[in-house]
Amino acid sequence: MSLSPSHKEQIQAVRAAIETRLAHLLPIDSAAPPRLRDCLTHTLLAPGKRFRPLLTCLIASDLGARQNGVIDVACAGEMVHTASLILDDLPCMDDAPLRRNRASAHVAFDESTAILSAVELLSRAFGVIARADDIAPQTRTVLSSMLARTVGANGLIAGQLADLSNTDSEASVEDIERLNQLKTGALFDFAVLAAGQMAGSDKQTTDALADFSHQLGLAFQLLDDVKDVMMSEADAEKTTGRDVGKATLVALTGNAASLERLRGYLADAKSALSRAGLGDGAVIAAMDVQFSFANRAAETMGHNNGNG
Amino acid sequence: MSLSPSHKEQIQAVRAAIETRLAHLLPIDSAAPPRLRDCLTHTLLAPGKRFRPLLTCLIASDLGARQNGVIDVACAGEMVHTASLILDDLPCMDDAPLRRNRASAHVAFDESTAILSAVELLSRAFGVIARADDIAPQTRTVLSSMLARTVGANGLIAGQLADLSNTDSEASVEDIERLNQLKTGALFDFAVLAAGQMAGSDKQTTDALADFSHQLGLAFQLLDDVKDVMMSEADAEKTTGRDVGKATLVALTGNAASLERLRGYLADAKSALSRAGLGDGAVIAAMDVQFSFANRAAETMGHNNGNG
Repeated sequence: MSLSPSHKEQIQAVRAAIETRLAHLLPIDSAAPPRLRDCLTHTLLAPGKRFRPLLTCLIASDLGARQNGVIDVACAGEMVHTASLILDDLPCMDDAPLRRNRASAHVAFDESTAILSAVELLSRAFGVIARADDIAPQTRTVLSSMLARTVGANGLIAGQLADLSNTDSEASVEDIERLNQLKTGALFDFAVLAAGQMAGSDKQTTDALADFSHQLGLAFQLLDDVKDVMMSEADAEKTTGRDVGKATLVALTGNAASLERLRGYLADAKSALSRAGLGDGAVIAAMDVQFSFANRAAETMGHNNGNG
Repeated sequence: MSLSPSHKEQIQAVRAAIETRLAHLLPIDSAAPPRLRDCLTHTLLAPGKRFRPLLTCLIASDLGARQNGVIDVACAGEMVHTASLILDDLPCMDDAPLRRNRASAHVAFDESTAILSAVELLSRAFGVIARADDIAPQTRTVLSSMLARTVGANGLIAGQLADLSNTDSEASVEDIERLNQLKTGALFDFAVLAAGQMAGSDKQTTDALADFSHQLGLAFQLLDDVKDVMMSEADAEKTTGRDVGKATLVALTGNAASLERLRGYLADAKSALSRAGLGDGAVIAAMDVQFSFANRAAETMGHNNGNG
């Protein structure tokens, strides 16, 4: 799977723009408490792949959205994502000391600073959308409502609560996919559908984008679960082995079947992307980069099986 | 200080409408996790005076705002207020077991449910504003941006962080007033200025409203600090005595001087309210109800002093 030079350059340029913009959107020069600023920098500006905001920017661009505010809306999604990671890692949640190859926020600082930083990222995300002033006000209110639903009682929060009590050994594939949709899919839906909203997509395109983000979210969560089992912490750049005892697709069906399922999700995602008219753009290239581990792992397994 | 029958009825009617609307705005009938719904009900729907949303509704009404969405924006402020209380009470913050005469959220449920409920209330508040669809979209984006600043690194969060490290015995009256403005004033600013925004107030009125909310926020925080010292937990309906060792105006200047200062704030607030053209409406009546403790305490003190 080769990356065309132009797509590679586009992805690199958009990633760099996202990094710059994220730093700009933090209250770095304000009267904000230094400890809060340090924790926001530690968490939001930790090196990351920026896959979600990259999706928003690439899809919006490919669909013809030209507002300067697109990148801010993309960054708002990344802020909420980072807030959710800070909260997930807390002692009362997953109690994970490592994130993005750094000490988790509550370890590097303390619990209260971590919680308040998450709240700041969350509310700032809504503020950033509200102030993206070359996007039509009506569109901004739709985006804000979408983001609230993404976070809310039928999104990330429901997913986190369900995950905390996830020790159900009777869970089916469908049960686990439903949990994964809440935990991970909700933010992918925002990243993808916000792009469609800003581009003024028609219903057919919006439906295809919704299919795409649904499959992509499932693929992403499954990749995360596979990494939890198959990768060292150094490679994963976060605490691994945390899923032991949880009902995941990997635990239920094994590594090989999980990788096969993952390839199915990705194929369905690409097919939906084609229906949205984006079948040969940089989005596909960005997916291939993001999911390269899954392809490598599948090849290694096939190789091992062949020799074993 | 007597309450006119018509103002009393108006205040009761608005309070009742706020209670009904708050309950309606929770995800009670949705697929939200039952534990989350229970915690949201426990916290947001605990009997409270609803002073902030009452202010929003009364001021908006007196200024001529007629949108149905006014009450939703008022409720959004109350959601953020409740979220801040849940977080303030956490073990890693003030570690307070009692709130609004009930067990605090993390005691009645657990820490993770408490934190996620606060996050849900916060993001739902932004969603409620975004969907208040008889308010002009441009106004909704302004309100959303105002709310983000209220929560943010120069508002509630900065106040909470400063309060957590508040053991500065050298703090001056000005230092403490600055902290009180962040901790308490920010949400009063939102409650009051949102009303002006929805009514389309001119600059002169907006400036007077800003003065009003500033003085009122200082008065409210000082009342809270006085209650912490002078009231039993049963009367305060929350954990008291938590301010011991903190730099408060009560600790710095004593009870009698604090009550005198409080009366000064209230007088300045009422004067600003008059400049906003609201000097004889239900807002004044609502203030008198809210601050009746201060008046009673001042009378008792004067009485004791006279006999002592």
